[in-house]
Amino acid sequence: MEKAIILSFLLVSLLSSSHAADFCVADLTAAPTPPATPAEESALTADDFVFTGLGMAGNTSNIIKAAVTPAFVGQFPATNGLGISAGRLDLAKGGVIPFHTHPGASEVLIVTQGSICAGFVTSSNKVYTKTLKKGDSMIFPQGLLHFQLNAAGVTSVAIVSFSSPEPGLQILDFALFGNNLKTALIEAVTFLDAATIKKLKGVLGGTM
Amino acid sequence: MEKAIILSFLLVSLLSSSHAADFCVADLTAAPTPPATPAEESALTADDFVFTGLGMAGNTSNIIKAAVTPAFVGQFPATNGLGISAGRLDLAKGGVIPFHTHPGASEVLIVTQGSICAGFVTSSNKVYTKTLKKGDSMIFPQGLLHFQLNAAGVTSVAIVSFSSPEPGLQILDFALFGNNLKTALIEAVTFLDAATIKKLKGVLGGTM
Amino acid sequence: MEKAIILSFLLVSLLSSSHAADFCVADLTAAPTPPATPAEESALTADDFVFTGLGMAGNTSNIIKAAVTPAFVGQFPATNGLGISAGRLDLAKGGVIPFHTHPGASEVLIVTQGSICAGFVTSSNKVYTKTLKKGDSMIFPQGLLHFQLNAAGVTSVAIVSFSSPEPGLQILDFALFGNNLKTALIEAVTFLDAATIKKLKGVLGGTM
Amino acid sequence: MEKAIILSFLLVSLLSSSHAADFCVADLTAAPTPPATPAEESALTADDFVFTGLGMAGNTSNIIKAAVTPAFVGQFPATNGLGISAGRLDLAKGGVIPFHTHPGASEVLIVTQGSICAGFVTSSNKVYTKTLKKGDSMIFPQGLLHFQLNAAGVTSVAIVSFSSPEPGLQILDFALFGNNLKTALIEAVTFLDAATIKKLKGVLGGTM
Amino acid sequence: MEKAIILSFLLVSLLSSSHAADFCVADLTAAPTPPATPAEESALTADDFVFTGLGMAGNTSNIIKAAVTPAFVGQFPATNGLGISAGRLDLAKGGVIPFHTHPGASEVLIVTQGSICAGFVTSSNKVYTKTLKKGDSMIFPQGLLHFQLNAAGVTSVAIVSFSSPEPGLQILDFALFGNNLKTALIEAVTFLDAATIKKLKGVLGGTM
Amino acid sequence: MEKAIILSFLLVSLLSSSHAADFCVADLTAAPTPPATPAEESALTADDFVFTGLGMAGNTSNIIKAAVTPAFVGQFPATNGLGISAGRLDLAKGGVIPFHTHPGASEVLIVTQGSICAGFVTSSNKVYTKTLKKGDSMIFPQGLLHFQLNAAGVTSVAIVSFSSPEPGLQILDFALFGNNLKTALIEAVTFLDAATIKKLKGVLGGTM
Repeated sequence: MEKAIILSFLLVSLLSSSHAADFCVADLTAAPTPPATPAEESALTADDFVFTGLGMAGNTSNIIKAAVTPAFVGQFPATNGLGISAGRLDLAKGGVIPFHTHPGASEVLIVTQGSICAGFVTSSNKVYTKTLKKGDSMIFPQGLLHFQLNAAGVTSVAIVSFSSPEPGLQILDFALFGNNLKTALIEAVTFLDAATIKKLKGVLGGTM
Repeated sequence: MEKAIILSFLLVSLLSSSHAADFCVADLTAAPTPPATPAEESALTADDFVFTGLGMAGNTSNIIKAAVTPAFVGQFPATNGLGISAGRLDLAKGGVIPFHTHPGASEVLIVTQGSICAGFVTSSNKVYTKTLKKGDSMIFPQGLLHFQLNAAGVTSVAIVSFSSPEPGLQILDFALFGNNLKTALIEAVTFLDAATIKKLKGVLGGTM
Repeated sequence: MEKAIILSFLLVSLLSSSHAADFCVADLTAAPTPPATPAEESALTADDFVFTGLGMAGNTSNIIKAAVTPAFVGQFPATNGLGISAGRLDLAKGGVIPFHTHPGASEVLIVTQGSICAGFVTSSNKVYTKTLKKGDSMIFPQGLLHFQLNAAGVTSVAIVSFSSPEPGLQILDFALFGNNLKTALIEAVTFLDAATIKKLKGVLGGTM
Repeated sequence: MEKAIILSFLLVSLLSSSHAADFCVADLTAAPTPPATPAEESALTADDFVFTGLGMAGNTSNIIKAAVTPAFVGQFPATNGLGISAGRLDLAKGGVIPFHTHPGASEVLIVTQGSICAGFVTSSNKVYTKTLKKGDSMIFPQGLLHFQLNAAGVTSVAIVSFSSPEPGLQILDFALFGNNLKTALIEAVTFLDAATIKKLKGVLGGTM
Repeated sequence: MEKAIILSFLLVSLLSSSHAADFCVADLTAAPTPPATPAEESALTADDFVFTGLGMAGNTSNIIKAAVTPAFVGQFPATNGLGISAGRLDLAKGGVIPFHTHPGASEVLIVTQGSICAGFVTSSNKVYTKTLKKGDSMIFPQGLLHFQLNAAGVTSVAIVSFSSPEPGLQILDFALFGNNLKTALIEAVTFLDAATIKKLKGVLGGTM
Repeated sequence: MEKAIILSFLLVSLLSSSHAADFCVADLTAAPTPPATPAEESALTADDFVFTGLGMAGNTSNIIKAAVTPAFVGQFPATNGLGISAGRLDLAKGGVIPFHTHPGASEVLIVTQGSICAGFVTSSNKVYTKTLKKGDSMIFPQGLLHFQLNAAGVTSVAIVSFSSPEPGLQILDFALFGNNLKTALIEAVTFLDAATIKKLKGVLGGTM
């Protein structure tokens, strides 16, 4: 036992700093960040490294018949500083995740139920689309417009992961029609006509 | 003179490797990359670190009455590996750079002539717009939709710089209406109607 | 139509470089790397961004009653340069992924079938273990020893993703007992006794 | 309208975290940093993303007949975390930005008025100099000694941008002669003679 | 003197921000981090950039007859944010640094006294071992299992440096036998037998 | 034995790619880079990860009575991609490493023999100097001017390490006086007088 004490002493001297270099679990009760204020290591349990929210189907009773359940740093603080996060897509029959981008991350999608038609458009304006079966994976490079459409007659589900704890999510229709951008301005920067814009503002909650 | 020879010898021993660690000018005649094949340092001159293309007005005789002149790694190979690139915007009277993103970089714009109304939309769907006078700068965070509109009665010009040699450029209208995406698919992922889509395909060259 | 031609001309001038800045799909037939030699963009199809290997159960008829199916850059070249990769774990009844590390990435695991007991040990020598149900996620910070054990009476399955296209995989038992490390050396650096080492070398294929 | 409410509900659930992942505007009233304490997103307006200081000529009534106006994170907090910053150079007739380095960034300079002779020296001790006309750009790789000299008979102006919000700026003459380095020490580490050092200390404010 | 005042004025305007961009010395009295709370620059002296702890031999009166003296960010706060840290190894006659990893850094070791046999194992399960003489250096890639054994009849010493201020240190035997991991669990994830595990727990302080 | 074969089969399937993700030893016989062309893993031996050049004293029979022996990627190819490199300083009695910068890395210096007076100057023009005893370490933040002077009556030696395989080295006197920069230009960008410049060009080999 004496030996154990001696060796433990060595280890303690190595670890005398209060820094937990291996990870930096965010303390979401602290001031808004990044960079996150790290939680005290002594206060962490295994539950801090576990997220249970991807086990439940998202609510698809909405206009897109689909739901995105994020496990980003805001929901899963342990991802902070570790270069990765995750999420879940539920697409009811006819469901769609409309054109969107993740400004801060690349995405890998894996179909776990049903079938999904997915695609993205590149800076060169080239389109890559594919109907994915259960078990198929697809990668969406960072920042590019992409979409997912249910390609099955029943609910489809996918697990997605991202190359950052804070991928961001910019849904095109919301960015255009779901805020206070003026109709004339939208016309000018999209070439859509005012009637179309106003109709979609009505659906998506934009200020008229 | 003997001393110079001795000291030079020291320096030569430090530099006996053929690696030019300070930069990595891309050899665009080599296979397409990134990562770039570096040019031989001995073959480089000051001209390799200079780009003259931003001195000329871009051709604004087009539908958007505007032009983007890039000085990305493809045009300015010396930016390779150095985390920065540049460009120039010319906006004739009534000109607009329509909604677009740079998937791989943040952007700083500086108005050098005239006045420009610019804006971007965040992942939180919030809009930030500002009419910039000559000399004003604005920053557009990476990957977010943004636009620039001429706010002067005459031609306006801006210098832009990017946080990457390969910022990418995805112009929304081209991504939606300027390629072979099927009309029904666009309808599904944008909520636009078929007539609107077909009209814009006609203008922007998309396959019907 | 004239307008479309004019605007297309603008776009072409932006894209005159052969660089595909949005991604860098690895050409695995080229010399071994990183950094990867990128495939020519014109030769890419949607299939290059899709990986079908995670849809099939791995072969668990082995000593650990488990299988790891990687979708790293070697199997899924499109992940190159995008900061992410994936994989699949199959654990038959009694199956285990023994203590291992990923030297180059953090990992997020999501249970898609059954139940898995997982854990990791930190630099501070603290242990975090948790029995995960279907739908639960757990994060394993970069480089730390961790394990997964089937906690169900039937086959369990998990999808894993990594914060790098090249996470690496160092399985402890193979590193100790599955190569040509001499028994005396292993004794010295692990405090295991020679008999134990030789027994495990017999099982794991190490040189005696 | 009901649809809008339902869809908005989806979006709200995605954005329930107070983290603004797209950017991290520094709160300069908080403790000195990096890393910056981010401002509350709800408190930000478009003005936070705009910097007006580059629109005014710097004061060139000084010994170098030149001025550097920075738009680094200290002046333009929105650049925080976005990998880019900017600045403006004013060079009166005969003006010079003496030999200096940016320890933390590469620089791109674009001449917007007049003509500037610029150059840098590499780790291999090679010199690249060029007289730039209005509209010409030049890149200065990170950390290398470089200079700018007015090459016109009238005031010249340049816009500069940097690959970091905190490029740093080390002006050689100030580093050598503008602080409390002892003359004997400067002699030893530069091979300059004491008389020369003392003369320049007199000009540049160094402690004798 | 007037000139000095004028030029100083220029410099002051450049440096009016309280940010010290060149470094970010950690204030270890602040909340545990990373990211570190930076110390106020005005409070720093040369001593803040100097660490004296590597000048003393570590205490090798322990079971491994060896000592690791770290100069990580916890001991040497000035390394914070600078991508590097250091340490010292003392190996008495018969001493050994057992199999361990640094989850967050690559390591370079330089023998400064005696002789050391060192080795590492790759993800491909290949072993690289070498007996190093005084003055020899060896590199251990990030996250891989490696060890150092005294190969001299007298005390050997090495200086080590790391590619991160927070390399972490996971000593295999402590990770397995020096905490509260249950014997049955260790059996399952290592294939070691219970008797071996219990014996080493007795030596290394693990909970029985 | 059968079990070993089965388990080996698992491992082989994991490692079927020819990519060696753990490291990327540079093949210096290939075209000059970065990024380096990696050597074939099968061709590597332990010697590829070992550098013996730091064991020998550098030749200090020169004007600075000092020598720098680099173990950068050009000399020690295994450092490629691993974020670290090393070197050795020999300072004979009266020896000095004159003011210099490393544009691409921070440096940690550890005195292994004698005593060294070292210092650096910040972007804020503040000076930090310290006389280091054997065993003392000092850190020099990236890109800042720094120097080392022998502070002992006998030869002093230091081991240095860098936060990059390609730190670069720009020695101030060589950058100013050891190349083809014209005297008038040097005058303009340093405020040194022509006589001083010509004298030092004579010593350091610059073109008159």
